[in-house]
Amino acid sequence: MRVILPMPDNETMARALARRLDAELGVLDWRRFPDQEAYVRIASDVRDKHVHIVCTLANPDAKILTLIFAAAAARECGAQSVHLVAPYLAYMRQDRRFEPGEAVSATHFARLLSQHFDSLITVDPHLHRIGDLKDVFSIPTRVGAAAPLLGDWIGRNVDAPLIIGPDQESEQWAAEVARRAGAPHVVASKHRTGDEHVRVEMPDLATWSSRRPVLVDDIISSGRTMIEASHLLAARAMARPYCLAIHAVFAAGAFDTLARLTERVVTTDTIAHASNAISVSDTLARLIEA
Amino acid sequence: MRVILPMPDNETMARALARRLDAELGVLDWRRFPDQEAYVRIASDVRDKHVHIVCTLANPDAKILTLIFAAAAARECGAQSVHLVAPYLAYMRQDRRFEPGEAVSATHFARLLSQHFDSLITVDPHLHRIGDLKDVFSIPTRVGAAAPLLGDWIGRNVDAPLIIGPDQESEQWAAEVARRAGAPHVVASKHRTGDEHVRVEMPDLATWSSRRPVLVDDIISSGRTMIEASHLLAARAMARPYCLAIHAVFAAGAFDTLARLTERVVTTDTIAHASNAISVSDTLARLIEA
Repeated sequence: MRVILPMPDNETMARALARRLDAELGVLDWRRFPDQEAYVRIASDVRDKHVHIVCTLANPDAKILTLIFAAAAARECGAQSVHLVAPYLAYMRQDRRFEPGEAVSATHFARLLSQHFDSLITVDPHLHRIGDLKDVFSIPTRVGAAAPLLGDWIGRNVDAPLIIGPDQESEQWAAEVARRAGAPHVVASKHRTGDEHVRVEMPDLATWSSRRPVLVDDIISSGRTMIEASHLLAARAMARPYCLAIHAVFAAGAFDTLARLTERVVTTDTIAHASNAISVSDTLARLIEA
Repeated sequence: MRVILPMPDNETMARALARRLDAELGVLDWRRFPDQEAYVRIASDVRDKHVHIVCTLANPDAKILTLIFAAAAARECGAQSVHLVAPYLAYMRQDRRFEPGEAVSATHFARLLSQHFDSLITVDPHLHRIGDLKDVFSIPTRVGAAAPLLGDWIGRNVDAPLIIGPDQESEQWAAEVARRAGAPHVVASKHRTGDEHVRVEMPDLATWSSRRPVLVDDIISSGRTMIEASHLLAARAMARPYCLAIHAVFAAGAFDTLARLTERVVTTDTIAHASNAISVSDTLARLIEA
């Protein structure tokens, strides 16, 4: 027996998963005490059941203790196994010590989750130098790919698209989106000069001047990459771009700026946001069933 | 060799401890990325040293990942041992399962800290049903007592005080404060009916009408106990009370309300706050040295 247990603000995804899997939808009681500590109670019977806690990990610091307490409570209430379904996985960027003394948070965060869960399911983690989640997690991990979903959405919704990946690292991924969309693709080159500063160089687009640019990336956080790319496209008199991303992290103000510069901003529902138009729930459900 | 390493916003206490212990004051680089993840770097050489991380744990959810990352980074940088100095310790209130399915956060939080530190030093943890920190921590713990400091402050600053403890549980502690202050004491009785609702009953104070009431408690969070007690004293035409507490948690608005109703609100510096007038730094330094 499976129970799909939503953490606060993850009810929509949990409901979709429970429906798709014909599983029980669990209930978590949660509130903050006046001193900001969290109260956590599993209000469903989880004894002898497989509990899948659904918790997207954007803004992870605010969520981690509630998540750990919920996992511990599930075990104490006799759950047969406790799994984490994190449509967006946090802290995968600092995966190496660049300066002496730096905390390699990708390793430490993965170790912490590995101590509390029997397995992890996520969608397109932001891996660069870590080749595989297995390198940092000691529990089984299964990863869903959103590129086909983005490609299919573009194929259905955009006439004569040109897929533009943000940097050379995204080449293969952008190619996969383009293949599914039945469209050509190019990649820009990106140079990061600070948390909120990037320089983007766009390739020659003369061949594609009649096409609709579709910027694709895995995460929109500060939005600087997408914003810079949109300005460059405008300077070349291309049509207003679509912006597609998997994870709608959106630092303060990023979405509003992007929405003004683009035809439309579209994301998947790995993080709940007004721009969500593509659901990963079927992808996650298949991984839970696998 | 000891390094006293302050977490963000704990620099004042760390500096006092380093000075008192003639120890090195370490430096932690910390910032938030645009996506709200934390960047953590120990900017001091901690190789082969005993690292004492200073982190008061009010508002614990916002701090725990940075704290865990800092501890892990210290170990990876070759620290000989890594200790936590938490002048205020969080999550000690939910120490039992009152309803089925509740997370016993005191146990889970203590286990988490025990996994990352070699020892814990704190001041007057809020223990009720847990007899001793040893019951939930698997690492050595040392606990400082602030009652003598509160008593001494009252003795020096308040004429003809009457010490008033908030409830029967505080009897022994209020008696200790009173003994140090050279003053009589009484205890009220408190009935909690919700997170922000308490009913307080005051004993007969006719004998003490010429004395200055001094309300003492370990924590002021919502402030309801102190606020209700202050109203009761006003109704009996007692002088405006002093309010003394160890831990200045102060939920939103609590301090302003209390400040209007009382002669003065005084706390220790276990949590930095405008009301701090008593320092526990010597108490903590002695425990670190012990």
